[in-house]
Amino acid sequence: MDPKLGRMASSLLALLLLLEGGMFSSSPPAGLLEKLFQYIDLQQDAFVQTLKDWVAIESDSVQPTPRFRRELCRMMAVAADKLRRLGASVDSVDTGSQQLPDGQSLPIPPIILAELGNGPKKPTVCFYGHLDVQPAARGDGWLTEPYVLTEVDGKLYGRGATDNKGPVLAWINAVSTFQALEQDLPVNIKFILEGMEEAGSVALEELVQKEKDRFFSGVDYIVISDNLWVSRRKPAVTYGTRGNSYFTVEVKCRDQDFHSGTFGGILNEPMADLVALLGSLVDSSGHILIPGIYDHVASLTEEEKNIYKSIDLDLEEYRNSSQVKKFLFDTKEEVLMHLWRYPSLSIHGIEGAFDEPGAKTVIPGRVVGKFSIRLVPHMNASVVEKQVKHHLEDVFSKRNSSNQMAVSMVLGLPPWIANINDSQYLAAKRAIRTVFGTDPDMIRDGSTIPIARIFQEIIGKSVMMLPLGAVDDGEHSQNEKINRWNYIEGSKLFAAFFLELAKLHE
Amino acid sequence: MDPKLGRMASSLLALLLLLEGGMFSSSPPAGLLEKLFQYIDLQQDAFVQTLKDWVAIESDSVQPTPRFRRELCRMMAVAADKLRRLGASVDSVDTGSQQLPDGQSLPIPPIILAELGNGPKKPTVCFYGHLDVQPAARGDGWLTEPYVLTEVDGKLYGRGATDNKGPVLAWINAVSTFQALEQDLPVNIKFILEGMEEAGSVALEELVQKEKDRFFSGVDYIVISDNLWVSRRKPAVTYGTRGNSYFTVEVKCRDQDFHSGTFGGILNEPMADLVALLGSLVDSSGHILIPGIYDHVASLTEEEKNIYKSIDLDLEEYRNSSQVKKFLFDTKEEVLMHLWRYPSLSIHGIEGAFDEPGAKTVIPGRVVGKFSIRLVPHMNASVVEKQVKHHLEDVFSKRNSSNQMAVSMVLGLPPWIANINDSQYLAAKRAIRTVFGTDPDMIRDGSTIPIARIFQEIIGKSVMMLPLGAVDDGEHSQNEKINRWNYIEGSKLFAAFFLELAKLHE
Repeated sequence: MDPKLGRMASSLLALLLLLEGGMFSSSPPAGLLEKLFQYIDLQQDAFVQTLKDWVAIESDSVQPTPRFRRELCRMMAVAADKLRRLGASVDSVDTGSQQLPDGQSLPIPPIILAELGNGPKKPTVCFYGHLDVQPAARGDGWLTEPYVLTEVDGKLYGRGATDNKGPVLAWINAVSTFQALEQDLPVNIKFILEGMEEAGSVALEELVQKEKDRFFSGVDYIVISDNLWVSRRKPAVTYGTRGNSYFTVEVKCRDQDFHSGTFGGILNEPMADLVALLGSLVDSSGHILIPGIYDHVASLTEEEKNIYKSIDLDLEEYRNSSQVKKFLFDTKEEVLMHLWRYPSLSIHGIEGAFDEPGAKTVIPGRVVGKFSIRLVPHMNASVVEKQVKHHLEDVFSKRNSSNQMAVSMVLGLPPWIANINDSQYLAAKRAIRTVFGTDPDMIRDGSTIPIARIFQEIIGKSVMMLPLGAVDDGEHSQNEKINRWNYIEGSKLFAAFFLELAKLHE
Repeated sequence: MDPKLGRMASSLLALLLLLEGGMFSSSPPAGLLEKLFQYIDLQQDAFVQTLKDWVAIESDSVQPTPRFRRELCRMMAVAADKLRRLGASVDSVDTGSQQLPDGQSLPIPPIILAELGNGPKKPTVCFYGHLDVQPAARGDGWLTEPYVLTEVDGKLYGRGATDNKGPVLAWINAVSTFQALEQDLPVNIKFILEGMEEAGSVALEELVQKEKDRFFSGVDYIVISDNLWVSRRKPAVTYGTRGNSYFTVEVKCRDQDFHSGTFGGILNEPMADLVALLGSLVDSSGHILIPGIYDHVASLTEEEKNIYKSIDLDLEEYRNSSQVKKFLFDTKEEVLMHLWRYPSLSIHGIEGAFDEPGAKTVIPGRVVGKFSIRLVPHMNASVVEKQVKHHLEDVFSKRNSSNQMAVSMVLGLPPWIANINDSQYLAAKRAIRTVFGTDPDMIRDGSTIPIARIFQEIIGKSVMMLPLGAVDDGEHSQNEKINRWNYIEGSKLFAAFFLELAKLHE
């Protein structure tokens, strides 16, 4: 017999026994937690299959094309259907359309608001997730088809597997496990699922604001599971994220390109201006050169310092798994602080220049550089915007170029930081201890998950990020994956979290 | 009567009279030159029709598709047939096939070697031309169908009209005029016509090398007519072109990209290294910063200085038509010298970075910058290669980056310069004075036309570029055209040039 078929058959048999009320008649009757975990273990192939179905939908929100937008809307419809089949009341909120700079108008995929259970004595947890993904194409360096979830050595490769379709499904798996075992859900559950996270969560903040006193009125806790652990095996709880201010700097001579033989030597070439501007932003030690940029960065307390010390990060292993020869810093603490509590500046690329293989002798007529600064407490995006503009204008004016420069902050997302002594943080720590047998790392995330701050600011309730993915999942990059283990144990973690949170409310 | 029909009828009448031996019986018998010019004037509609037939063949060598390659082969066959009907002995040399990076194999169109006349006392002039064209599609911004030669206000619009089908036919028109008037050709004529110029003249240099002691053995002069005047009305003779050394500089941290939230702050980011490297190449006044780069640039003589002074270039009009706000230099002489006799450095773009619209928060893992330096006498590509590598290695090592850098010169084409006191230059000047009533502009070309240097180096004979097209012909761009006037007067110019060259050999 094919080993896979054999595994499926024995899983089915065990499942039948479990649903009969006891897996091994000689063992003591399994506790609820044990039953939930057994069910999840036995159902894992079905859970993986659903993830495969969801990954197959090319819900890319970054490339603004009608095809991807249709896929996104289909993704939201599939998720709404799934939630309805769980018994949730589902509201797919139409949030209108998006005007692109080129005049095109594209629909924004609906935002799903769903609720399941309204026990007045139960705490209400709202789970936020997103079903859109970053762009992915086989030719970018993927070893498998990005939209075909492919398992290799327990790793489930596919775009969106860990960011964020896997964690969304893990939460759904936890809920459905209570239902399959005909167990009362210990908490009331709400869902807010969007399809534009990778494109800046267009329309989300507005909706949260609008639903503040209706959908969100009974919500006690908000859980987000949209980041990663800092370890391959040790779970984490996240209490802060960096913000992001994204800039474009356009340098234009004329709209058309030039031939470098015919014009080379007599022009202020826009690319020469642009590389000078981009080259003025950050030095080779990672220090940002924009005057004033560090003025509002929070000072480091002893308490905060201690958190970094206990975190399970093998810097050498992290460096190796990242395939990076050398980091800018040599200690775990310095590395973590520069990822989490200090700003950073990255240059992403240039639009309008020659970007293909080969040797084209073009002088681009108009180029747009793109860079962003990750913001930390207590930096303010609008202050940063002024500092960046002032700096670039200063550098550009010194070049005495006849080109035109235009700087624009296209995104300004503040950082977020939470109180780690809140109940749901305690419940999460206990659930982690139960499922994984260890205390979590208390971490921040270097990237920007604006929704954490939006929820905290607008709804005024505790926000927690409870990641499921391992440090090497490669979100946003080629060969993104989630481990089968993380996906399945993560489903258990959410189930255990529901029980722990309910206990704290008894 | 339709004015066009009227013109045709009177042309035919005049032609009959001309062939009878005298147009106006009361005038003195027309000299040979006058007869030749009259014939060309009268035949101009037929000459334009042939150009129309040739433009209709979509001989695009840039887009490597079987259809375009068939069109190219058909173009070469049509040209070979035309030359045979002139009485030339024609050899269509099969040069094999081209392997594309994707594994596809496409035939290279045959190169035509043709000869007409072998008078031992006559000089032998070899004309080089190409019959392939750049891509063109109506949707790119053409106002007329690019492959339908369309006359508007004396301008013949069509892909290849000026680059290079028009000039090739003008040479053929000149030859056929002598034959039609039953006049002995004053020079022996050879043709080398290729179909891959726009795709890098695949296989040409090899053939020239191979035919050096056979086909090219009796050749005294090589004429190329594959560039433009610098004026709309004043003809030019070209005696030099810049070379080009094209560089790639790769900076690599790892093959995969990073997420700027997850890694921003702890990496030597390849883009930061690359913009620093590219930013070290040229200053905002266009001065190249690579040490030693100007060492071998020929010093400026008084004789050369004077050449620039007399050139007919309205700098203001040129700047306006180029849609450039300001050039780096304020005088005609400085602008021309920086296009023709000084090197220039252009940054073309970056491969591997984020180049699309939108705001992707990526740290590119591996980026390749591309730039090129236009070479002038007496710069040497391999010396430049060493200087560039040395400079970039120096800049990179000072950054103390943990990334890897690799610099590569992917193209190294030397400049070309001719002796303007050679007989054929003298003959061309005289012919221009006869046809246009003015001395030509003695010009160079800022771009690279490798064939000039190849002929000069391999065959060791005088090479001259004798353009026919006006500065606004738009070769390579949308709405390419040749003026009817340039095409017809250009045919006369070549006829006069044959006579002048023969006179210098008497």
